[in-house]
Amino acid sequence: MAEAKIVDVPKTYKAAVYDKPGSISTQIVELPILEPGHGEVLVRLTHSGVCGSDLSIMTNAWTTLPFPTAAGQIGGHEGVGIVEKLGVGADARSVKVGDRVGIKWATAVCGTCDRCRRGFDGHCTLRKISGYYTPGTFAEYVLSPANYVTPIPEKLASADAAPMLCAGLTTYSALRKCNARSGEWVVISGAGGVLGHLAVQIAAHAMAYRVIGIDHGSKEAFVRECGAEVFLDMTNFSDEDIAKEVKRVTGGLGASAVILCAGSNKAYSQALPMLSFGGVMVCVGMPEGQPLPISNACPGIIAAANAHIIGSTIGSQREAIEILDFAARGIVKTRVRVEKIDKLEEVFRQMHDRTLEGRIH
Amino acid sequence: MAEAKIVDVPKTYKAAVYDKPGSISTQIVELPILEPGHGEVLVRLTHSGVCGSDLSIMTNAWTTLPFPTAAGQIGGHEGVGIVEKLGVGADARSVKVGDRVGIKWATAVCGTCDRCRRGFDGHCTLRKISGYYTPGTFAEYVLSPANYVTPIPEKLASADAAPMLCAGLTTYSALRKCNARSGEWVVISGAGGVLGHLAVQIAAHAMAYRVIGIDHGSKEAFVRECGAEVFLDMTNFSDEDIAKEVKRVTGGLGASAVILCAGSNKAYSQALPMLSFGGVMVCVGMPEGQPLPISNACPGIIAAANAHIIGSTIGSQREAIEILDFAARGIVKTRVRVEKIDKLEEVFRQMHDRTLEGRIH
Amino acid sequence: MAEAKIVDVPKTYKAAVYDKPGSISTQIVELPILEPGHGEVLVRLTHSGVCGSDLSIMTNAWTTLPFPTAAGQIGGHEGVGIVEKLGVGADARSVKVGDRVGIKWATAVCGTCDRCRRGFDGHCTLRKISGYYTPGTFAEYVLSPANYVTPIPEKLASADAAPMLCAGLTTYSALRKCNARSGEWVVISGAGGVLGHLAVQIAAHAMAYRVIGIDHGSKEAFVRECGAEVFLDMTNFSDEDIAKEVKRVTGGLGASAVILCAGSNKAYSQALPMLSFGGVMVCVGMPEGQPLPISNACPGIIAAANAHIIGSTIGSQREAIEILDFAARGIVKTRVRVEKIDKLEEVFRQMHDRTLEGRIH
Amino acid sequence: MAEAKIVDVPKTYKAAVYDKPGSISTQIVELPILEPGHGEVLVRLTHSGVCGSDLSIMTNAWTTLPFPTAAGQIGGHEGVGIVEKLGVGADARSVKVGDRVGIKWATAVCGTCDRCRRGFDGHCTLRKISGYYTPGTFAEYVLSPANYVTPIPEKLASADAAPMLCAGLTTYSALRKCNARSGEWVVISGAGGVLGHLAVQIAAHAMAYRVIGIDHGSKEAFVRECGAEVFLDMTNFSDEDIAKEVKRVTGGLGASAVILCAGSNKAYSQALPMLSFGGVMVCVGMPEGQPLPISNACPGIIAAANAHIIGSTIGSQREAIEILDFAARGIVKTRVRVEKIDKLEEVFRQMHDRTLEGRIH
Repeated sequence: MAEAKIVDVPKTYKAAVYDKPGSISTQIVELPILEPGHGEVLVRLTHSGVCGSDLSIMTNAWTTLPFPTAAGQIGGHEGVGIVEKLGVGADARSVKVGDRVGIKWATAVCGTCDRCRRGFDGHCTLRKISGYYTPGTFAEYVLSPANYVTPIPEKLASADAAPMLCAGLTTYSALRKCNARSGEWVVISGAGGVLGHLAVQIAAHAMAYRVIGIDHGSKEAFVRECGAEVFLDMTNFSDEDIAKEVKRVTGGLGASAVILCAGSNKAYSQALPMLSFGGVMVCVGMPEGQPLPISNACPGIIAAANAHIIGSTIGSQREAIEILDFAARGIVKTRVRVEKIDKLEEVFRQMHDRTLEGRIH
Repeated sequence: MAEAKIVDVPKTYKAAVYDKPGSISTQIVELPILEPGHGEVLVRLTHSGVCGSDLSIMTNAWTTLPFPTAAGQIGGHEGVGIVEKLGVGADARSVKVGDRVGIKWATAVCGTCDRCRRGFDGHCTLRKISGYYTPGTFAEYVLSPANYVTPIPEKLASADAAPMLCAGLTTYSALRKCNARSGEWVVISGAGGVLGHLAVQIAAHAMAYRVIGIDHGSKEAFVRECGAEVFLDMTNFSDEDIAKEVKRVTGGLGASAVILCAGSNKAYSQALPMLSFGGVMVCVGMPEGQPLPISNACPGIIAAANAHIIGSTIGSQREAIEILDFAARGIVKTRVRVEKIDKLEEVFRQMHDRTLEGRIH
Repeated sequence: MAEAKIVDVPKTYKAAVYDKPGSISTQIVELPILEPGHGEVLVRLTHSGVCGSDLSIMTNAWTTLPFPTAAGQIGGHEGVGIVEKLGVGADARSVKVGDRVGIKWATAVCGTCDRCRRGFDGHCTLRKISGYYTPGTFAEYVLSPANYVTPIPEKLASADAAPMLCAGLTTYSALRKCNARSGEWVVISGAGGVLGHLAVQIAAHAMAYRVIGIDHGSKEAFVRECGAEVFLDMTNFSDEDIAKEVKRVTGGLGASAVILCAGSNKAYSQALPMLSFGGVMVCVGMPEGQPLPISNACPGIIAAANAHIIGSTIGSQREAIEILDFAARGIVKTRVRVEKIDKLEEVFRQMHDRTLEGRIH
Repeated sequence: MAEAKIVDVPKTYKAAVYDKPGSISTQIVELPILEPGHGEVLVRLTHSGVCGSDLSIMTNAWTTLPFPTAAGQIGGHEGVGIVEKLGVGADARSVKVGDRVGIKWATAVCGTCDRCRRGFDGHCTLRKISGYYTPGTFAEYVLSPANYVTPIPEKLASADAAPMLCAGLTTYSALRKCNARSGEWVVISGAGGVLGHLAVQIAAHAMAYRVIGIDHGSKEAFVRECGAEVFLDMTNFSDEDIAKEVKRVTGGLGASAVILCAGSNKAYSQALPMLSFGGVMVCVGMPEGQPLPISNACPGIIAAANAHIIGSTIGSQREAIEILDFAARGIVKTRVRVEKIDKLEEVFRQMHDRTLEGRIH
């Protein structure tokens, strides 16, 4: 592809740093160019997604994180670019100069810990998180281990690849864990949102599930276009009635899985009664504010239904490669808008004010 | 075995009925002998376990059941006896006169509904529940479908078999669902109780797990004898410290599974932080009183830990046969005391007053 | 549907019997009408598929069967019809008069043996085989247990349902067992045949696999239309080259599964080298003549590739319901031709002479 | 442990090289000490297992390998020793100076290829094989990647750990793949051999299977001591009768799995008829001489039994850690004899002449 041409590496590069962590503020700085260390590659970034998590890290909104964001941190964790240089020991059989590659939330993993060995490498106990305490992708260049960048398939445009590395991967991993059989009914709650619209497409087209999408009525056309066979306008139903409607649609059995993409406590409370006997609900979207238990997650209710409540965050390198393959085949696609790096702060303000539609790169 | 001899079927039989449902009261009545219908067998009961569920049904303590118990109901759902007579169409290749067989909570299932087809036959949507609305096992005779009685292995005494048909089956099924690999750590909460002491034995000896038992200190010797490698006295730890201790014992990783045999909300709240990444907690024991959500079952906590909260009640015919096989091999054994049927009401009173040790038959 | 109307049950019914087992010969006879026994239903058949197995049973071609076919046997095992009458004990909650239902190869199962309990009910050790030693579906009426007929979905025409009960079920079950992940490559060998053209549709549309179809070049358009992304003309490749081509198409990795629908020893020998590391080949189509071992199924070759060679025949009631659901949704469809029962012998002759295209009903 | 003390690293070290590949001949040479590269550790070896594969590599006996062994190659792939020095970038959180670690057949893997991502890291397409084309463990020192050495548990003696890294890992991985449920019957063929005696112990004690061991009668006491509940003397049975005996022992059902540890074509031919419906045979031991197909691995036979024939070689890092944990707990133990490095050639001659009992270190 045209964008894959190799350019001379300059002496300096531009990056957007969080100059006042805790508030919405970024500053463009000029930094000396990086030299790849052992096993690393230097990536010239061409695209970087802007994700809600970036906003949370910039503003120190997540109180459960172990430490606040440092001033001068380069944010961003959905980057796509071209490998410009290999450090010593970066195996050219895995990646070579000119390759297009992606950078993910977990940008480096140890490969040896218990989680890595069990296929949870995205949750490696020694992982580095891009854009939080390791320089991220809101920059012209970034370093990354050669063995953990994700190759971008030839047929996938970089702007389309970036959101797959985070939102796509997150929903794909959640659906892989839900354990439903192809042909079974899966409910996507928050079906018109950033995560939800990808979940609908993956469920319907990449896994052959039958999809019931739930969201506000304004999203109906969009959700159906993504692949939902049935759409339920959440504003038309009481908590009890929406579960009854899911049971009715599914021939009385309930859905094999409910994927909670909407971060709303109300949506979480509605999910359990929608499940078939032995069904699975997957917690993905995080409600804001004080953490509340799922209101009907009582031992007796869970046991009587033989229900499964499981949690999922991000995904593995294997899953990243798989979702990019589905995207390259045109099966999953996000809505994106491309902006220059200088507009980053403005984008964050729009995101904060919820005036943003889709994803920015 | 001596007890398997066939006797002449009498004209009448004795049964203990709930004469005043809602209170602890049983009455011994004499009823005309039963004639097996198509596909049924007549079983002369020699042993019947007395389970907490029988007390709940007699006293109408479970408000979520669809209807109250009828006066005159014969209770009991853990019966063992001898097949005395086959109805027309009861296939003698499956069961024959003289066989020892067991009666379970689900005493008849349809074999064709969605749950039956998926291996959840114990939860068949058309099942009949022994001792609730179908005549139960607190009697000298009972009818049961030939194709759903459970064969008792030759080497297993009937008194030892009875509790396996309910408590044994329940804990076995829960452990099968926890999905841990042999050699991994599993916590049994309420390890010295009716369910827990079986769970410890099954986990340690039938599934080769490493077991951490949690209970009051007074149960330590018993729980260790059942197979627990580590015992934690719950009275010695704060909620936070007990999870830390589980992490310490498991080399920092946490337990692959926690089986909640104790019906205590406190135990449920302690479980999630004990889990390894991606670990599974299984809800089995039911807390009394108003149903409360598990206090830390918040979407964010579940998702961050990729935790699984699953529910399990009773089990399938396949699992019943398997747990009886383990019992017959001496791998799992419950503590039982044998009493005559006339003592039933007294046993219920002891059960209600919690002065009972082990199970009665 | 119009065809579901209830008619008066006549005194006699027509059936096609094998009058000279060992040769291709059927005779239409008039028999006294049947009365459903306990738990049975009387089905007025409207359609019956004609399958290669029927020919084999009529001609005693399978030397491994335990006994030869009896003169007077009514053949057929892919029947669809209307329930006309319920025997005593046939639960009207499961099936009622007027329902359209299907009869399968295994027409009655015990529900209690080891195989039934493990979900292999189609292989029940006490099963009755329709059209071999139990009166089959080449007749106007047949009896069947109420709990093992398969409900036909409302939107599925009876002529389309019949072949799903055998060929559809067989290929669906084989694909369920191949354990590939959606999005992975699966090879269908014999992709244009009776089993293969269904396997391609199921793999591509019901399970979201990427399909490589292999057959004679004349089948290419048909196989692609069924959903194959890649077609390989077997006459264009040596044994070695066809495996190389599969590796090339799959990015060097090989296919996750190969489903052997063609009953050719050559096709079996080609399969192992097509597999990815740890991949699965499924034996479905049976080569004629003297049984030969798969030529490269040597311990060292299987071990080095961590390959899986598995066998699959027919399927379970659960799978039958699932494949009918896919068929009702228009996702899988066979080519059928409808003939009157009087033409049965002629159809068998065409089948024997291989002049038949598709299936007959 | 005493042996874990750190010593001064000398200037040179002794190693046994294959001086005349193709024949049984080793020479002790003195080589300049090694310097760990990036991410590597220098290991002072204290023990090294001697495996049949070493003999095959020394003598170029495996004609399927891509290239012959080079003169001067240091053999050996079951090494245990002490980390003496960390190279730059070897993460001290994973491994530190003084740790006891093991070296396996696959001594370095890429961590990024398709096989690594799917948990088949022992079969990484870029792996280095210790003692074949990478300097092996028949030496006083060896280099290895910090992230792929296997930590040795504190309670496990080094002499006991070495054979677990190859024979133990191989049999453990095969048993993990056989997919039987605890409590089910598993046949170990070649139960008294190098692989078999470990398989019996793992199956019986680490996975709670019921074990039928098959070998020559002289091995009976040993095999029973390892944990076999039933022993069959292969010399007492015809091929047909031995399968019948397995069926009889298993209550008519057959074994859930047969693990072929014996590399004999006869043993392979006996296995399929021993299986339960849907059972699994695992190919582990490699018959010598011309590769022959398993004589009854015919499509029709495999399909009718819904049998699984699967292959397994070595295992993953995760499995290596797990089997070492079982060994440290005293659950699995091999018979070993310890010799000095100067005796290596003599040991190989004994191995070749089959006069060797157990393993040498």
